[in-house]
Amino acid sequence: MALGEFSLIDRYFKRSGNVGSTPGTIGVGDDAAILPMPPGHKLVACKDVLIEGRHFFTGVVPDSLSHKSLAVNLSDLAAMGAKPIGCLLGLGIPSVDEAWLASFSGGLNALAERWGCPLVGGDTVATKDGIVISVTALGILPYHESGLLRSAAKVDDDIWVSGPLGAPDIALQILAGNLEDPQGCLPKLRPTLERPEPRVALGQRLLGFAHAAIDISDGLTQDLSHVLDASHVGAVLTLKDLPVHDGLAAFDPSAIQRAVLHGGDVYELCFTAPAVHRQRIGLIGQSLGLQLSRVGKIRAEPGLFANIDDSLIEIEPKGFDHFLRGEQ
Amino acid sequence: MALGEFSLIDRYFKRSGNVGSTPGTIGVGDDAAILPMPPGHKLVACKDVLIEGRHFFTGVVPDSLSHKSLAVNLSDLAAMGAKPIGCLLGLGIPSVDEAWLASFSGGLNALAERWGCPLVGGDTVATKDGIVISVTALGILPYHESGLLRSAAKVDDDIWVSGPLGAPDIALQILAGNLEDPQGCLPKLRPTLERPEPRVALGQRLLGFAHAAIDISDGLTQDLSHVLDASHVGAVLTLKDLPVHDGLAAFDPSAIQRAVLHGGDVYELCFTAPAVHRQRIGLIGQSLGLQLSRVGKIRAEPGLFANIDDSLIEIEPKGFDHFLRGEQ
Repeated sequence: MALGEFSLIDRYFKRSGNVGSTPGTIGVGDDAAILPMPPGHKLVACKDVLIEGRHFFTGVVPDSLSHKSLAVNLSDLAAMGAKPIGCLLGLGIPSVDEAWLASFSGGLNALAERWGCPLVGGDTVATKDGIVISVTALGILPYHESGLLRSAAKVDDDIWVSGPLGAPDIALQILAGNLEDPQGCLPKLRPTLERPEPRVALGQRLLGFAHAAIDISDGLTQDLSHVLDASHVGAVLTLKDLPVHDGLAAFDPSAIQRAVLHGGDVYELCFTAPAVHRQRIGLIGQSLGLQLSRVGKIRAEPGLFANIDDSLIEIEPKGFDHFLRGEQ
Repeated sequence: MALGEFSLIDRYFKRSGNVGSTPGTIGVGDDAAILPMPPGHKLVACKDVLIEGRHFFTGVVPDSLSHKSLAVNLSDLAAMGAKPIGCLLGLGIPSVDEAWLASFSGGLNALAERWGCPLVGGDTVATKDGIVISVTALGILPYHESGLLRSAAKVDDDIWVSGPLGAPDIALQILAGNLEDPQGCLPKLRPTLERPEPRVALGQRLLGFAHAAIDISDGLTQDLSHVLDASHVGAVLTLKDLPVHDGLAAFDPSAIQRAVLHGGDVYELCFTAPAVHRQRIGLIGQSLGLQLSRVGKIRAEPGLFANIDDSLIEIEPKGFDHFLRGEQ
């Protein structure tokens, strides 16, 4: 049975437009979605595009693929301190595979419901070959909040990162055949690459006292450099304080350091805050069950430096650039 | 010189984030965009995906391509009666071609500025081959307005369409090599396909008294059927009242009728309104310099019928379906 675009939308995506949405929401099925905005709020909006073979492997479990497609956008909202209110899905697929669609919509809806971010609209199209996914996530900020902007880091701020680092990049290197995995660590590392957890609750808890925040999806050094540039400041990272994922012990120390400093596909937040808030940040980490590590300091002198045994060595920011063949 | 993703965004898209945007907007260059919402408004959001070779021909002028990518979304906002406030661009391209990008961003910015819909965010990625475009448009509705919903048509409403019909489909058939063009009509018809004008002002003017509206991008009969289904009503179209584009006289009458009734890629609005508003609608058309034609009537009996010489003949809705190889 041929399943047309409209049946496809009805079957897999329409119902979800009403799950968890604010009363008054007009979701999937009209020209556009309508979302009531709570009085006194600003809108926050972001969008990511994922291309088969570039951002995900052919054959990845569809449930994980849709999870990640939404997670990377929720991560961007988190990095602004925003509360999600809804999302739109642009989906290009070469043909209609109902089992695939059931799994894909299931993964999307599960994450969407967890964060109160229902699918409210989008577009489904046919591609010649390959899957293309574009998710837009919409969120809100209280009107008086400026959001956790990249340009807001201040001299003497502490630099913090959430979660342990390094695992997604090592998993990617193993899957791509660039790294051996003699001890069979992949099963433990792979979920960090394929089912990242966006730090939505953390972002909202930081609002009001933290300064800058960014998600480090392009790699810690590259994304932190964007903060430094936008804020006209520099930073020193204390390498020994960088939190390393506990599944990496089997790998070469230089591969681990590279993954921690420069590895992409990390949906943790890097944020800055005055030292007076250390205890508060510690308590937030405890209440969220989330590792929060103080890894450095913002300073006036430009540039990004590593503190290794009390010597400062300049770090050249590296990370993922979509037009320079991956690692630049 | 290799141009990386960040330079690309800076050079072609960043500046436009500030052009025409509401004071307080944080545009391109952070994890997400922040848009102030005027008090007492609802958010309206839509998204379309365009794939090279499927929705546009390889080699189309980039300035027209970006115009159309935004126009199709503005058309969806118009069909809700919403006022645009900003847009996000997802762009996948196989390599960085600066002349192409300059033209593409120019076309996008020109249309965005015209309708007060600045580019405030998005994502640029590399594809293996082919161009993929996904635009999200954001708009607002006054809080007390329900919007021009597909489900709002009422029995005895007049059915109206904006603009003349048929030209984009005939242009597409000529370009695809399916239709001869002995009299060289293509140059006159082609802009209707490649640079459609979204009916943004019309949508907003209809708000408050018109009932249902839809943009007829998938073809008049198919899109009107969506309104009929959602509103649990039927309709009769008076075929002789359907406005035919004046550049089509050279073509076969059956090809014209097919293009007018079923042809896709038409970014005109079909809307319904009580008969008491005929004069008001006439004046709106005059003030906008836009042809508005009364082409039929909503009735309680389900189904879509054509009135031909006072006989009713049922019309089978046809149009574009992305998964049934174009025309279904």
